[in-house]
Amino acid sequence: MTMKIGFIGLGIMGKPMCKNLLKAGYDIKISSRNSETNKELNELGAEVVSSLKQLAEISDTIITMLPNSPEVLDVILGKEGIINWVRRGTTIIDMSSISPIVSKEIYSVLIKKDIDFLDAPVSGGEPKAIDGTLSVMVGGKEEIFHKCLPILETMTSSVVRMGKVGSGNATKLVNQIIVALNIAAVSEAFVLAQSMKIDTELVYRAIRGGLAGSAVLDSKAPMIMNRDFRAGFKINLHLKDLNNVMDTSENLNTPLPLTSSIREILKSLVIDGDGYEDHAAIVKYFEKVASTEVNPKLVK
Amino acid sequence: MTMKIGFIGLGIMGKPMCKNLLKAGYDIKISSRNSETNKELNELGAEVVSSLKQLAEISDTIITMLPNSPEVLDVILGKEGIINWVRRGTTIIDMSSISPIVSKEIYSVLIKKDIDFLDAPVSGGEPKAIDGTLSVMVGGKEEIFHKCLPILETMTSSVVRMGKVGSGNATKLVNQIIVALNIAAVSEAFVLAQSMKIDTELVYRAIRGGLAGSAVLDSKAPMIMNRDFRAGFKINLHLKDLNNVMDTSENLNTPLPLTSSIREILKSLVIDGDGYEDHAAIVKYFEKVASTEVNPKLVK
Repeated sequence: MTMKIGFIGLGIMGKPMCKNLLKAGYDIKISSRNSETNKELNELGAEVVSSLKQLAEISDTIITMLPNSPEVLDVILGKEGIINWVRRGTTIIDMSSISPIVSKEIYSVLIKKDIDFLDAPVSGGEPKAIDGTLSVMVGGKEEIFHKCLPILETMTSSVVRMGKVGSGNATKLVNQIIVALNIAAVSEAFVLAQSMKIDTELVYRAIRGGLAGSAVLDSKAPMIMNRDFRAGFKINLHLKDLNNVMDTSENLNTPLPLTSSIREILKSLVIDGDGYEDHAAIVKYFEKVASTEVNPKLVK
Repeated sequence: MTMKIGFIGLGIMGKPMCKNLLKAGYDIKISSRNSETNKELNELGAEVVSSLKQLAEISDTIITMLPNSPEVLDVILGKEGIINWVRRGTTIIDMSSISPIVSKEIYSVLIKKDIDFLDAPVSGGEPKAIDGTLSVMVGGKEEIFHKCLPILETMTSSVVRMGKVGSGNATKLVNQIIVALNIAAVSEAFVLAQSMKIDTELVYRAIRGGLAGSAVLDSKAPMIMNRDFRAGFKINLHLKDLNNVMDTSENLNTPLPLTSSIREILKSLVIDGDGYEDHAAIVKYFEKVASTEVNPKLVK
């Protein structure tokens, strides 16, 4: 079986994910608007086709890796969307991080045309996309999941099927709540440490092995201490995810007071021009609101 | 050298810490108001003396492990405090988690009488106190720290000197901010997962290896899923720590909006009678504010 995979969305994440599929020997079709990307991937074995129409017509499986719900809706269901061209029995795997409500909407339209669908957002940034060590959380029918498992395993090191369509993105939202608030926790803690004139390097060493230890502390504390906020995962994108969280929580009557607060903080950072920085730059908000005048009481 | 150590504060944490000193062969003096505790530790080799006065007079080093600032102030500097009885050159190691401002106050009084002082709060609960695997963060003069290091190492597996007196408790406050907010993060995330009808066990498995992973997730998510909120570390005590955090942040003009929110949540839980539960019970607050009526939009 020579399975043909169409890959749509060859950005910071999509391109290295696609490269891992090429390395594993998959027959990949692409049609990027970026000719550099087409050239680069073509040299690695991808076939460049002239349009999404053609890509959709010849692929058995189509992977989308796009910024947010509107782009995914447009590419799949839009006027020029691939729904118009894909054959019955094709599987679309949307690996974008979007609203689970939108995933369900897309599924309900596709299934009427006998097109299978998985929502399969990933966690982990560009380095993990390159190494093929992303985590993917998948929603969709069990048999479709099993059919696509080898493809997913080629790009990731952890694959968990969460349930029906929508549950992949639902899990991703849960993940993004924890990540955002854990960064805020480290940020408030480190800003207070600085105000107290405590060496943050020593703080990190003293607390990382205990209950305050986390993947966020290990990856973001050094960025904060070294003032290196190159993304990584951009504040803009995290805000997008938290907007999806809050839409969902409103639909479900589930107040999330702290997530709501950190969303407001992300908005404030975007307004201040920090949207393209890594989400470790959340610390800047707390630094801005802290007084530059340090009370000498604790310092002496 | 037969160093005599007086140990004051033989509660949930202090008793197992004292036992580890006895096991290591230290000459321990105690004078608990609890005769059961005196009996138990006497059988392990501790000498029970008749009063704190006597304990203070015969000890070279005195360890205090008490609930909060007022108790520490009372035992050390109060009318009947040990300051009245200890000899010049004695070292007092306060291992309680209290306000760093109070640690500095105590130090400034003791040093005038040639009594040395370290603030050395620990992180980790009763099981780590029993195993001798607590983390301790120490403030105080370097030579005093080195003199006391073998004693501290007997009760802990990580010892870091943070700086001058007060810096131990300052670091503990930093630690408690992160722990409280990381629990809140897991709590909001899990409550949303439940509203979305996603299996929290699968969520835990899908996200724990990624950027959402943390010591809090690993230790508290199972407690939340199993509805097992036996302390562990009580909400009452975490509220005490966050009160010390907010007092300090006010002194330093360092606003901590999220820490302030989680403190209010802890207050609400204490009012509702949950103060003696483990801090994993923070999740109960978010469950209470969430609607019991689930919007069917995302569930079907």
